[in-house]
Amino acid sequence: MRAVTVAGKDMLPVLENKDLPVAGLDEVVLQLYASAMNHRDVWITKGLYPGIRYGCTMGSDGCGTYLGQEYIINPGLGWGDSEQAQSSSFRVLGVPDEGTFADNIAIDRKYLHPKPDHLSVHQAAALPLAGVTAYRALLSRARATAGEKVLITGIGGGVALMAMQFALAQGCAVFVTSSDPDKIHKAKSMGASEGYNYKDPDWPKKLAADAGGVDVVIDGACGAGFSSLVKVCNPGGRIAFYGATAGPVDSLNPQAVFWKQLSILGSTMGSESDFALMVDFVAKHRVTPVIDEVIPLDNFESGFRRMAAGSQFGKIVFSH
Amino acid sequence: MRAVTVAGKDMLPVLENKDLPVAGLDEVVLQLYASAMNHRDVWITKGLYPGIRYGCTMGSDGCGTYLGQEYIINPGLGWGDSEQAQSSSFRVLGVPDEGTFADNIAIDRKYLHPKPDHLSVHQAAALPLAGVTAYRALLSRARATAGEKVLITGIGGGVALMAMQFALAQGCAVFVTSSDPDKIHKAKSMGASEGYNYKDPDWPKKLAADAGGVDVVIDGACGAGFSSLVKVCNPGGRIAFYGATAGPVDSLNPQAVFWKQLSILGSTMGSESDFALMVDFVAKHRVTPVIDEVIPLDNFESGFRRMAAGSQFGKIVFSH
Repeated sequence: MRAVTVAGKDMLPVLENKDLPVAGLDEVVLQLYASAMNHRDVWITKGLYPGIRYGCTMGSDGCGTYLGQEYIINPGLGWGDSEQAQSSSFRVLGVPDEGTFADNIAIDRKYLHPKPDHLSVHQAAALPLAGVTAYRALLSRARATAGEKVLITGIGGGVALMAMQFALAQGCAVFVTSSDPDKIHKAKSMGASEGYNYKDPDWPKKLAADAGGVDVVIDGACGAGFSSLVKVCNPGGRIAFYGATAGPVDSLNPQAVFWKQLSILGSTMGSESDFALMVDFVAKHRVTPVIDEVIPLDNFESGFRRMAAGSQFGKIVFSH
Repeated sequence: MRAVTVAGKDMLPVLENKDLPVAGLDEVVLQLYASAMNHRDVWITKGLYPGIRYGCTMGSDGCGTYLGQEYIINPGLGWGDSEQAQSSSFRVLGVPDEGTFADNIAIDRKYLHPKPDHLSVHQAAALPLAGVTAYRALLSRARATAGEKVLITGIGGGVALMAMQFALAQGCAVFVTSSDPDKIHKAKSMGASEGYNYKDPDWPKKLAADAGGVDVVIDGACGAGFSSLVKVCNPGGRIAFYGATAGPVDSLNPQAVFWKQLSILGSTMGSESDFALMVDFVAKHRVTPVIDEVIPLDNFESGFRRMAAGSQFGKIVFSH
C-alpha cells in the first residue's frame, strides 16, 4: 500500500510502498478514503518533535471504511482516565505510531467513531484533530455559553476556524483576528461579527468600540500579543490557548488578571469524552469543516508546501 | 466615638473623635468589639489606592454586636449578581466607605453574618477579608479537593495562612514557601508537610523530590518566581493568585501550560455566596484564624508599623 513517511530532518516526506498493516489485539484495519494535514506534520518534517522515527507513516486525521461502515479516527491515543489532563502515555496518532497518510491503518477500535452523516469523507477527514482541540479549548475548558462574545485569534488555521464554527453553533458572537484581510473577509462571510488586523496596534481599541469586550478568547499564538488578549477580556473572562506560534508570553499584568477574575487556560488535544462530545456537537449542529484544498495523496508534497507557507484557509485534505 | 482615619499620603493614620454613625435604609449600627488589619490598610496610607478620602475611617475587618447578637461583616460591598466576577460598583469596606477601625459602624444588614460560635471576637475579627479571599482562590476558583497537594507561597500573610488552614481542613497535603525559616517552622507545626525558602533557586527541585508535584498553587506574589510555580504543577494543575507583591509575570512558558493543561486563575475577594460558604466552612471545620498580636485600638500605630515591616505571622487585631 502507499504510505507517506518521515524522510529526515528538514526534508519533505516520501511516498513508500509498505506492506498492509496487520490488526493487533482490539484493532481493526481501516481502509482510508481521506486524510488531512495539521501543523504538526510540518513540524515533524522539521525535526521539531520528540520521538520522531524515520520511515514512520505520518498523518493524524483520517476517514475510512471497515465492514461497510464509514469511520473517523480519534487521534488522541492513550489519554487515560482523567478529564483534567492526559496521562504520560498519551500521544497523537501519526509518528511515532503509524499514521493516516496511507491506504490502510491498523487502529484500536475504541478510537473509531461513525462518520457524521452530513459530512463527505473529505470533510470528515478534516474534523478530528482540529475538532477535538477546538472543542476542548472552547467548550470543555473556556465553557463558552450562548450569548457570550468570543474572540478567535489567527483565523484561517484549522483549530481557529473550527473554534469559530463551534462558537457560532453555540450561539456566541464571534470576533476574529488575522494579518490577512482576505481571511477576515472569509470569516465574516461565515458569520463572524467583525475582524481585526493584529498588526494594527489599535486593534484592541477597535474591538472595544465594536464589542465592548469579550468573554472568551481562543488563542494559538501567545507571544507579545498576549497582553492585548488580557486587555480585551470582560470581567470573568476566560482565555484558552492551544499553541504558542508567536513564542513565550513575555509580560502578564497580574492586577488585570486578578481584578477581572480572569482564567488563563492551557489546552491541548482532548479526552475521549471530549472527542465523543465533539462528534455529537458537529452532528447536532451540522458543522462542516472548511476545506482549503483536496489534493491526491500522491501529490502530498504540494500540501506540505502550502501548509509551510501558512496561506491556507481551512484544512488541506488528501484524497486516497 | 473613636475612629482611625486617613491623614494623607505617606502618613500614618490618626485617631479622631467622630459623631456616632446614623443607620441609613437597610442599615444597622454595629458596636465594634474588634477589627483587624490587612495589607490594603498600609497601601492606603501610602496613597496606593484609587478613591482615597482623607478623614475617612479605615478598616475592612470587624466583629461587633447589635441587639445582643455578635456579628462579623462581609467587607465585599456591592459584588453584584455574577459569581464569575464583581460588578463595577464593587468596593472593599474601609475607604472610600467608612470602615471598622472605630467604635461603631453603620452597615447594610445583608453584610452581617453571625459570628461562628467557636471563635472569640478577636479571632472572628481576623476572619472576613483574608477568609473570603482564601476561600474563593482555593475552593471556588482552584477547587482543591481532598487528597490533592497544595502549595501556598509566602506563608505568614493573612490570606496565605487562611488558605493553608482551609486546605488542611479540606483534606489536602500542604506545602509552603517563605524566606523566613521561623515562618516555615510555624507552618509545619500547624500541619504543613514541608516548607521551602523561595530564595533558594533549588526549591522547586526539593519540592519535586518531596511531593512529586502539586495540584494547586495559591500565590500572592507573581513576579519572576511565577515560572517556578508552573514548573512544580502536576498535569491538570491550577494556579490561583490573589496578589502580585513581586510585580508582573515576566515570562510564561506557554508549552508547559498547555501541555500540562494548567489553569492560571486570577482571584480577588469573593462573592456574597463565597463569603457565606466560607463562614459555614470555618464553623464546620472549626478553623481558627491565626492572630499575630492583639493591640488596643488606641495603639493602632504599632500595628501599622508591624505590618509595613512584614514580620507578622497571622493577623494583627485591634481590640476596641
